[in-house]
Amino acid sequence: MRKIAIAGVGMTRFGRSEKSSVEMFAEAAVEAITTSNIKPKDIQAIFVGNGLGDFEEGQVNIAPFCAAEIGLSYGVPALRIEGACASSSVAIREAFIWVASGFYDIVLVGGTERAMAMGTPLSTRTFAMGTDSKYGELTGITFPGLFALMAHAYAHKYGIPLPKLKERMAMVAVKNHQNAVHNPLAQMRKEITVETVLNSPMIADPLQLFDCCPFSDGAAALVLTTEEIAKKLVEKPVYILGVGQGSNGAACRQKDITRIRVREASVKQAYDMAGLVPQDIDVCELHDCFTLAEIVATEGLGFFDFGKGSEAVEKGETAIGGKIPINPSGGLKAKGHPVGATGAAQAYEIVKQLRGECGMRQVEGAKVGMTDTLGGDLSIVANIIYGV
Amino acid sequence: MRKIAIAGVGMTRFGRSEKSSVEMFAEAAVEAITTSNIKPKDIQAIFVGNGLGDFEEGQVNIAPFCAAEIGLSYGVPALRIEGACASSSVAIREAFIWVASGFYDIVLVGGTERAMAMGTPLSTRTFAMGTDSKYGELTGITFPGLFALMAHAYAHKYGIPLPKLKERMAMVAVKNHQNAVHNPLAQMRKEITVETVLNSPMIADPLQLFDCCPFSDGAAALVLTTEEIAKKLVEKPVYILGVGQGSNGAACRQKDITRIRVREASVKQAYDMAGLVPQDIDVCELHDCFTLAEIVATEGLGFFDFGKGSEAVEKGETAIGGKIPINPSGGLKAKGHPVGATGAAQAYEIVKQLRGECGMRQVEGAKVGMTDTLGGDLSIVANIIYGV
Repeated sequence: MRKIAIAGVGMTRFGRSEKSSVEMFAEAAVEAITTSNIKPKDIQAIFVGNGLGDFEEGQVNIAPFCAAEIGLSYGVPALRIEGACASSSVAIREAFIWVASGFYDIVLVGGTERAMAMGTPLSTRTFAMGTDSKYGELTGITFPGLFALMAHAYAHKYGIPLPKLKERMAMVAVKNHQNAVHNPLAQMRKEITVETVLNSPMIADPLQLFDCCPFSDGAAALVLTTEEIAKKLVEKPVYILGVGQGSNGAACRQKDITRIRVREASVKQAYDMAGLVPQDIDVCELHDCFTLAEIVATEGLGFFDFGKGSEAVEKGETAIGGKIPINPSGGLKAKGHPVGATGAAQAYEIVKQLRGECGMRQVEGAKVGMTDTLGGDLSIVANIIYGV
Repeated sequence: MRKIAIAGVGMTRFGRSEKSSVEMFAEAAVEAITTSNIKPKDIQAIFVGNGLGDFEEGQVNIAPFCAAEIGLSYGVPALRIEGACASSSVAIREAFIWVASGFYDIVLVGGTERAMAMGTPLSTRTFAMGTDSKYGELTGITFPGLFALMAHAYAHKYGIPLPKLKERMAMVAVKNHQNAVHNPLAQMRKEITVETVLNSPMIADPLQLFDCCPFSDGAAALVLTTEEIAKKLVEKPVYILGVGQGSNGAACRQKDITRIRVREASVKQAYDMAGLVPQDIDVCELHDCFTLAEIVATEGLGFFDFGKGSEAVEKGETAIGGKIPINPSGGLKAKGHPVGATGAAQAYEIVKQLRGECGMRQVEGAKVGMTDTLGGDLSIVANIIYGV
């Protein structure tokens, strides 16, 4: 296997866009291509993560149209990968193997989604299709409902009074909004307080509005190549040190939803490939679709003991400057969550962090970063470890 | 790159099924697993082609549920690949690289679709989303409409009187129905005549009902492994000699829709990798979503000169026993077309043909076979060449 590098990255502003998913993808792709100092004709394959383009825009088979939009020719394979919210992280892992294997030298990978235009109620119903349609959906469960159940189970399992847990969950939102203030591409660049969260409308008890990430329009893209080529193209290549991915049955088939076993299996693969342990990670972008999801993820990735993640938030250990800065970009919570683009946007942030280009939200001296993306009802996770 | 083998294959009967897409996938997968003489725990990753599960069953994120249904564990990556009708051929190519690269030794790949349950009118509208949503769909084009336009353009370009072309198109349907009679898994096992086609209802002038393939429920799956392992597992491994894939913008951006340029680019990759030419192919399963589509495909794949494909049908050159037997399984036309499963089902047939297990529809002495799968409005094609 060859060592794989990210030459350049691109990303649209997250929020509401008047562009189509294909056009947003092209915007991010052109930035990734130009900052990689390559031409579109150098690209040998493209991989597009997209969650629900059919419902959003009546667009199935989006990948060839993304390829055509940036002027790629007939012989360039273009494929769409769908793993619900993890779509583009899964796509990065696919792109990785084609270059690592020596089959291709330069490929483009990213994700795009127009999730905001549908409106939150319809988006919520549509994305609930990421649960098992035969057993899960019939119960009427949606993702807010699932994570609300998880919050109750978590509080009970670890003996944390629910008001205390809710306060700590609110602190996740406060931190991520704070980080997003310094991210020009973020959707919600506004500081909030714990009270903002606790006084916001109830969505699914105990989750309130500010415990939930928004739906967003947006796209992000990366150019993957070999170490050798990247060194010739750009000053600061960022390398992929490890990749992992796992799968699981629907949440209704899982015994204990406070531990997302598929994440534990996925991240172990990434750590093993990289020869690293959780203590080696300097910065992490992880899947905070709900505030509790961030807490649970920091435990599953090995940064804190199980049951200790909420305490760590309260102590400031996940803030920039803390033990392990989590979601310096603002995360899904405040940067936004254009489903199929989320994993690629996490990669965008980690690459920028490792290149030291994040200004006021920079994690000083970050050399190793990780992304973590969860899809469906705890059923698919992909992790990627990056280093310089 | 390691030499890749198909150890075993599985396929459901095509037609109407009472099973869910996940359950159909499991049925095909279990047959592929058992005939490969492996256990589910030997599978290191799974790749699922699926076109429109969200509209069909409210099922996004189908791959992890397919993995769970056959008892795979957390650490097994499961991903869905969507390239419209070419979904599972694209998936086979993805599965190929993970094993060829040495990353995995044994993977499962297949496709599944429950397209019949929606009914043809809704299926037709839904699958039209495979065209470009911004420029193509607004014209009201559907796939029958697109191939109807192609038929007129083809007749005009090559100076073939439309009634003569229609008669030859009908002969494609007659041949494929004849082949399907001998395929116990085919949807339409009934002989028809040229008159059956020409007297059937008009769908999109000049395409009549029997020029069009049906929508179907069904699934198919393959176990991919290395040459070394396959030889230990089974008596008759079949090898992947070459793979190719290409992409193109929507048909409305293409100058001449009588030549599907993306196919020409794709199949060139497969021929080059295999070191073969069209004359080396003994049997081919190709994308006959409409009768004209088969004629055009036989030209694009290099079996006949451009404009000569319909004459070849009339001469019987594409029949079993002819110069290049096309669609001995019955093809999409008569075997059925469960969109995301079609490419895997083509692979199933070629593997069975090369193992000499096709009984009355056997192409005698077939040593090299090809699959060809087209997706969207002439925008994605994957080709795979198999050999023994």
